Amino acid sequence: MPVVITHCPRVGRDVAESFMAYGVATVHEAQGRGGLMAPFMRPIYPGARIAGAAVTVSVAPADNWMIHVAVEQCRKGDVLVVAPTSFSDAGYFGELLACSLAARGVRGLVIDAGVRDVRDLVAMGFPVWSSAVSAQGTVKETLGSVNVPVVCAGASIDPGDVVVADEDGVCVVRRAEADRVLQLCREREAKEAKVRERLQAGELGLDLYGMRDKLKARGLVYRDATSKD
Amino acid sequence: MPVVITHCPRVGRDVAESFMAYGVATVHEAQGRGGLMAPFMRPIYPGARIAGAAVTVSVAPADNWMIHVAVEQCRKGDVLVVAPTSFSDAGYFGELLACSLAARGVRGLVIDAGVRDVRDLVAMGFPVWSSAVSAQGTVKETLGSVNVPVVCAGASIDPGDVVVADEDGVCVVRRAEADRVLQLCREREAKEAKVRERLQAGELGLDLYGMRDKLKARGLVYRDATSKD
Amino acid sequence: MPVVITHCPRVGRDVAESFMAYGVATVHEAQGRGGLMAPFMRPIYPGARIAGAAVTVSVAPADNWMIHVAVEQCRKGDVLVVAPTSFSDAGYFGELLACSLAARGVRGLVIDAGVRDVRDLVAMGFPVWSSAVSAQGTVKETLGSVNVPVVCAGASIDPGDVVVADEDGVCVVRRAEADRVLQLCREREAKEAKVRERLQAGELGLDLYGMRDKLKARGLVYRDATSKD
Amino acid sequence: MPVVITHCPRVGRDVAESFMAYGVATVHEAQGRGGLMAPFMRPIYPGARIAGAAVTVSVAPADNWMIHVAVEQCRKGDVLVVAPTSFSDAGYFGELLACSLAARGVRGLVIDAGVRDVRDLVAMGFPVWSSAVSAQGTVKETLGSVNVPVVCAGASIDPGDVVVADEDGVCVVRRAEADRVLQLCREREAKEAKVRERLQAGELGLDLYGMRDKLKARGLVYRDATSKD
Amino acid sequence: MPVVITHCPRVGRDVAESFMAYGVATVHEAQGRGGLMAPFMRPIYPGARIAGAAVTVSVAPADNWMIHVAVEQCRKGDVLVVAPTSFSDAGYFGELLACSLAARGVRGLVIDAGVRDVRDLVAMGFPVWSSAVSAQGTVKETLGSVNVPVVCAGASIDPGDVVVADEDGVCVVRRAEADRVLQLCREREAKEAKVRERLQAGELGLDLYGMRDKLKARGLVYRDATSKD
Amino acid sequence: MPVVITHCPRVGRDVAESFMAYGVATVHEAQGRGGLMAPFMRPIYPGARIAGAAVTVSVAPADNWMIHVAVEQCRKGDVLVVAPTSFSDAGYFGELLACSLAARGVRGLVIDAGVRDVRDLVAMGFPVWSSAVSAQGTVKETLGSVNVPVVCAGASIDPGDVVVADEDGVCVVRRAEADRVLQLCREREAKEAKVRERLQAGELGLDLYGMRDKLKARGLVYRDATSKD
Repeated sequence: MPVVITHCPRVGRDVAESFMAYGVATVHEAQGRGGLMAPFMRPIYPGARIAGAAVTVSVAPADNWMIHVAVEQCRKGDVLVVAPTSFSDAGYFGELLACSLAARGVRGLVIDAGVRDVRDLVAMGFPVWSSAVSAQGTVKETLGSVNVPVVCAGASIDPGDVVVADEDGVCVVRRAEADRVLQLCREREAKEAKVRERLQAGELGLDLYGMRDKLKARGLVYRDATSKD
Repeated sequence: MPVVITHCPRVGRDVAESFMAYGVATVHEAQGRGGLMAPFMRPIYPGARIAGAAVTVSVAPADNWMIHVAVEQCRKGDVLVVAPTSFSDAGYFGELLACSLAARGVRGLVIDAGVRDVRDLVAMGFPVWSSAVSAQGTVKETLGSVNVPVVCAGASIDPGDVVVADEDGVCVVRRAEADRVLQLCREREAKEAKVRERLQAGELGLDLYGMRDKLKARGLVYRDATSKD
Repeated sequence: MPVVITHCPRVGRDVAESFMAYGVATVHEAQGRGGLMAPFMRPIYPGARIAGAAVTVSVAPADNWMIHVAVEQCRKGDVLVVAPTSFSDAGYFGELLACSLAARGVRGLVIDAGVRDVRDLVAMGFPVWSSAVSAQGTVKETLGSVNVPVVCAGASIDPGDVVVADEDGVCVVRRAEADRVLQLCREREAKEAKVRERLQAGELGLDLYGMRDKLKARGLVYRDATSKD
Repeated sequence: MPVVITHCPRVGRDVAESFMAYGVATVHEAQGRGGLMAPFMRPIYPGARIAGAAVTVSVAPADNWMIHVAVEQCRKGDVLVVAPTSFSDAGYFGELLACSLAARGVRGLVIDAGVRDVRDLVAMGFPVWSSAVSAQGTVKETLGSVNVPVVCAGASIDPGDVVVADEDGVCVVRRAEADRVLQLCREREAKEAKVRERLQAGELGLDLYGMRDKLKARGLVYRDATSKD
Repeated sequence: MPVVITHCPRVGRDVAESFMAYGVATVHEAQGRGGLMAPFMRPIYPGARIAGAAVTVSVAPADNWMIHVAVEQCRKGDVLVVAPTSFSDAGYFGELLACSLAARGVRGLVIDAGVRDVRDLVAMGFPVWSSAVSAQGTVKETLGSVNVPVVCAGASIDPGDVVVADEDGVCVVRRAEADRVLQLCREREAKEAKVRERLQAGELGLDLYGMRDKLKARGLVYRDATSKD
Repeated sequence: MPVVITHCPRVGRDVAESFMAYGVATVHEAQGRGGLMAPFMRPIYPGARIAGAAVTVSVAPADNWMIHVAVEQCRKGDVLVVAPTSFSDAGYFGELLACSLAARGVRGLVIDAGVRDVRDLVAMGFPVWSSAVSAQGTVKETLGSVNVPVVCAGASIDPGDVVVADEDGVCVVRRAEADRVLQLCREREAKEAKVRERLQAGELGLDLYGMRDKLKARGLVYRDATSKD
């Protein structure tokens, strides 16, 4: 059962990196509100933003052996995605593993567990989204798998899928959907640029989105506080 | 039942803004330890601090329609306070709504739910206190109310009340109490300034607050570790 | 029962301060993965790092009286460690107490409860690791003890033990173990420096740590994705 | 500021007790989905169900003094509602207080904090809804108030309001609304009885509620799995 | 995008029901420790145990419309599995829906959200595993999908897969794996029966599993407390 | 470092069992509110109550190897206390281990982690207090220790100490303190029996405990609601 899948097909690097232009909220909306990991996945420092192809790792709780195995499967532009088979907030990942990944051009780490050496990771500029920060060490005793489909923080992800992460969280785009979603992001962004301009000029969303009639039809009532006080 | 109250009386803007000089802890103490929201309300960036008059919004879970409705009711110096009728950590609020509020001079947002586009909100300098950060989108289907009394993060708040928020959390001051509480803040701060000086000079709180007798009366014992080792 | 132990023996200040050179993860590993507090203990600002001798305080829930008592027992280089007898996230500690501790040369605070005046603490550069941030005030009514053994955030700690804290969390080193653990930290760091260099040069942990044989023996299988697609 | 309001007007006992016939879900729906406490309020034993008039208590964290004060204000048919001013999961209430309340005909306790002596409370048949169970003792040092408006587990409640509680949680009905809400409960229940019968007979909600057209209009598509497999 | 897949192939009913003989722990172990939902999924009453074929539902947060749609797709022996697209602890499901499902022979409900009318569900003997209990109502406004792959409480599940649930939690067995896993359950149970007998007779696991040599080889030391006291 | 201490001195069995007569709340109070584990430690079935001498186990996260080792160290009347070195909610303990412990006369299990086979444990009448229930399996790879001092759910415990557990939680009594605490329990219970009788007869705690003067002195005010309505 424990297996390492090599030479996994990935989303094209240029496609993956094009997602850098869009925030996680935009990507999530563009694909019909799908693909989002749970909101407990937080970046270890403000301002971090990445997009890349997923190398997935299924690890035993409090055991980081397979992360060491996964490094070899990573290449430039990848994002490592680590999902333990049951919850542990131990620190599965630290500065030495980050050095190893950075040397291969990996963009960052997404892990539904803890990381450590945060000070060093910040100094290196190696971005991590995790569900915990903990100095607790892990063991290297139990096999897991690399590049198999996993569920990470509530989201299904296959190797080679796009991972986009910023301060709002982490979103997965299926490899086969990447081009289409990218196009939808572009369109959404273009539309929002126009809306933004009008809102900044003081126009109301109520008017701009034409909400007043629907609100009235549903029964929303306006009452003047001063007429009864 | 869903209603928008317009022309709500508010605390005077100069009074509200005078609270900017005091931290949330001071304001909370000054009013007898009342008015504090739960500690899970956190600012999206360090150093944020606001004070203003509340425009309140009661929204359905994962539905941000009424926030769009509320924008129109906001004016310069207000703080938007959003309370869902049941918990959801979805992202009810993002950069476009912030543009709209900023255009009207709104000071910031307090929401017992999630927000998104955090990177953009930080770039805009639009402060938010929320119970979650999440890219998850919401719908616009269910009516709620604007400028009705709500409970937000465990605190009762009426429209027009003062909202004070900083890195320690969020505190509500009743409109009718604002002047009195402001005066008590001033007095507390003046008193603390003197205490601070003495403590910085090395004087002990034990002496300064005259605690030694009470401690002794209650039975506190001192024992020298070296006399028994 | 409530007692203040005075003149507690402490780890030597030079020994304690030598731990500043090592992260919490290293210290925790060096002592066989012991001494770590729970990962919910977080610093109030990024980059904070301290090491010092523990002055311990056992306080009643939502009552900070004994912290005032403990100040007098602190000296240059100490770290105050506060453990409530049952959970409360109230703000037991703020800027005035910090002034008092700073005046005595105390390095920082570790508290399994809330703190307040975060903005001021940051401005002062007084580091705190806490399980909550809250403006909620506390009372001064119930006695507790100073410099007795306590359990803080799941870790046993005696007065005079070493406390090391950074962005990864908080770790306790027993006073009697301090020299030995310090030596182990040095050795670990030296070893890691060499590993780091090789990993940065692109060498794989799999080879460097000699994992391939063990993985194979345990039954790890490699499968080429392209050979079956 | 600390005050005990005596002789509080209450909802009529017969009105309050009529709510016993309806579950919390029905009452909550009947009043437009209002009045519900947070779902972390759980009964200490299965099958408990009460309805009565609220005697409210605002207590300091980990301090149960005011509960002792409140007993005197309770009469037959009342429900004691306890809200600490900040969170503590200590055991504010145990068997002796329950004996005292039972002797006065009090129906049960609702407390956003911990209770203890659960075995005895179950044996007595004294129902409690709480946010925690804990043996931790509390002190009697700080004043609070009895029969003032409080926020308990996220719900606003005034003395004399109706409290309805069962295995689904706790719901508050405003005293002035009690008759109207009771009538709506009756109507809702009558309507549901008919629906229940038809559903039990195998009729589909889709047809019974006439949902098919709206679903189709919104764009719901049906696809046969066997036609493409 | 919102779609209802009809006539989904399912695991055979006799196969599914054969899992009733095995606990969730056994099933989970038999398939290499896979398929388990998160431990926050709890039964609403003790002793509940079910096994059946999954009908899956993806719903919007706090919106139960698609559960009404899903009822029609259920048949005798099925288990309804409901996964919201983002977290809400509202009560999506109550007694009327349970009547409708029971009328169709559905075995029970698994939902990563809240349920209500618990007293009635218990009285009916309709078992539910949920992440919350809450009287909070939901809306019927947003489309979702029925019988699409979902992630429920951290586990991937396809329509037609086996769902096994008991007091230990909920486990998913892939349809294609069902026969094989069932056989492994039988073997595991047979083996455990023999072990149980020997353990009950007082034999030690240390001997029975032959652990002593491995423990010694790893360096476990035995020390007699009395020889040094 | 991993060690098994054999022949640990224990509290006398008759002393330990005498604690069965007192609830956890009483024991905790009798020893000055000390020794309580965190309130997240819950029994797997209602009504469970045990008292016995602790055999302590320190285990690696998600690794139950040392529990197998500990069985041999248990004797009639003992309680097994398991503390992982970092958090995992996996199911470390199930029915086979319970058979083994029951065969040796062990009273029950206290574990700051998950257990499984709950249905079987209940059927056997083998009581467990745990911080989780989960079917998740664990490994047997990493050594730990038996009968060393541990921190379990926030409480310090040494081998041979008394463990008392009931529906209110779990309390530890130091071996050397057992006789004294037992005597205090007896006195407390006797005193409470008299108080109970008077409260049941309708006397008020306010009078019985003589609180009225202290309340008045502190400034508690009584106000009649009817005089101002």
